[in-house]
Amino acid sequence: MLDDIVVDVAALGAAIGQPLPATMLALIDLGRPGLEALQAMLYDQSNLWPMGTARPLANVTLLAPIPRPRKNIFGIGLNYAEHVEESSRALDTAKEMPSEPVIFSKPPTAVTGPGAPVQHDITMTRQLDWEVELAVIIGNRATKVSEGAAMDHVWGYSVMIDISARDNRRAGQWIYSKGMDSYAPFGPMIVTADEIDNPHGLDLWLTVNGVEKQRSNTRHMYFKIPALIADLSHGITLEPGDIIATGTPEGVGAGRDPQEWLWPGDVIEAGIEGIGTLRNPVIAAGPAETGGLRG
Amino acid sequence: MLDDIVVDVAALGAAIGQPLPATMLALIDLGRPGLEALQAMLYDQSNLWPMGTARPLANVTLLAPIPRPRKNIFGIGLNYAEHVEESSRALDTAKEMPSEPVIFSKPPTAVTGPGAPVQHDITMTRQLDWEVELAVIIGNRATKVSEGAAMDHVWGYSVMIDISARDNRRAGQWIYSKGMDSYAPFGPMIVTADEIDNPHGLDLWLTVNGVEKQRSNTRHMYFKIPALIADLSHGITLEPGDIIATGTPEGVGAGRDPQEWLWPGDVIEAGIEGIGTLRNPVIAAGPAETGGLRG
Repeated sequence: MLDDIVVDVAALGAAIGQPLPATMLALIDLGRPGLEALQAMLYDQSNLWPMGTARPLANVTLLAPIPRPRKNIFGIGLNYAEHVEESSRALDTAKEMPSEPVIFSKPPTAVTGPGAPVQHDITMTRQLDWEVELAVIIGNRATKVSEGAAMDHVWGYSVMIDISARDNRRAGQWIYSKGMDSYAPFGPMIVTADEIDNPHGLDLWLTVNGVEKQRSNTRHMYFKIPALIADLSHGITLEPGDIIATGTPEGVGAGRDPQEWLWPGDVIEAGIEGIGTLRNPVIAAGPAETGGLRG
Repeated sequence: MLDDIVVDVAALGAAIGQPLPATMLALIDLGRPGLEALQAMLYDQSNLWPMGTARPLANVTLLAPIPRPRKNIFGIGLNYAEHVEESSRALDTAKEMPSEPVIFSKPPTAVTGPGAPVQHDITMTRQLDWEVELAVIIGNRATKVSEGAAMDHVWGYSVMIDISARDNRRAGQWIYSKGMDSYAPFGPMIVTADEIDNPHGLDLWLTVNGVEKQRSNTRHMYFKIPALIADLSHGITLEPGDIIATGTPEGVGAGRDPQEWLWPGDVIEAGIEGIGTLRNPVIAAGPAETGGLRG
């Protein structure tokens, strides 16, 4: 995207007779050389776009920037001090800041895009909660990288809403309560790392039906991005396009008095300074499928 | 595989002028019609294999049957009664059987194949533990399927060793302690569902350096396979090739008195009746990479 013009990179490639990546993952795989070549090409081209290769943002329906991640999304729990405090009051977590990052995951099937509905299944939860988070997108494979080298592995940043069914934890494990279909609204776009001077100085906020519920700044993250990448990659190889949701500040529904939960008809908006705003309605999930063999 | 002959299906396709799937995931995507067509073709062909399309198992190095799953592996914790008891003594889990399946996950990068090493990183763990598990491979997409329909979604069965660094749980979350690179030995093959009459009547066992540590039968699973698929798919869409590791019986290292752990030089063997045996050595993990930009 350049200003408010969205360029269809694959269509541009076809128009100028040069194969260009058709998906975000294909672009990320090309690394910094690919991104720099594309950026140069877009700036060269930006006086006149071949017919059909560019259009106004208002005329485009955005999908999640990576609709199908290659592995689970990594989430970081309890990474803002005030949220640790509210969580220890309302949930079953400790009062103290964790000594190491608290890592959980969401399956790739949890991802949904800007504007797409979060499904509220009344048979599964009556405690559906919100969390706005800065999402870090990995650019280069990372195995046991140091904190000093970690930021070289960041491709860009986006917004993720970490939806949780607080009443569906299983023996304390969070994958199910945070990993159901549509529980990871993601977008509205990825801003590449070169366009964010300091990822630890960004305001972030979340509203429900227009009422502000969360407002903080990423400077309050306890484990910063280099520490998260170094810690995760020490045991788990990070790959191009992997997503780390870096934790949420205070103001979640579970921590309020009285507690507040999301219900069908609600609209969540979550934004981060310099990236954009994600808006997702909550809807009642449809009835169960009867299933069976379709292969 | 037919008896001890391994057929290279893609090579067979090339030899007979018919495109055949080159990977397990491509075959699973074709569903039951694809499997039945392939089985008929293999039995027709089995008098004479075109040169280069079949060879003895002893001359083949097997990889994990799905080296790169499409999403995280789902694991089921605390699903055999005696293991719940030993776990409540040795770890921080409850004494009672869980009221719902305890779901956790391992990233796809944790998968390793038969014979491949489990990496022991002394900077990460001094409590590396073993767990033999029946792995269920999903064949058909499953969203909110009933227990009655669940078995129609099973493609086949395999063995997984659920390796855990007991001392690297994070606020109780298991993804990191169970999800590091090489912590999911998988194989030696997938046996299709039509070849296993009763997946809830299979002996399973595990040895370390030839000494038996676990021996039980899948009949002791508390939540049976239909219940696991119905429960998981209620919230999370299961897809072709997804893997559910169904839990481990008693005999893990943490539950022994004194406790026992895996160390470099150890060899783990894990087998399930009617499927096969997985053998993986434990090695010391290499030094940290310095990382940095390689894109």
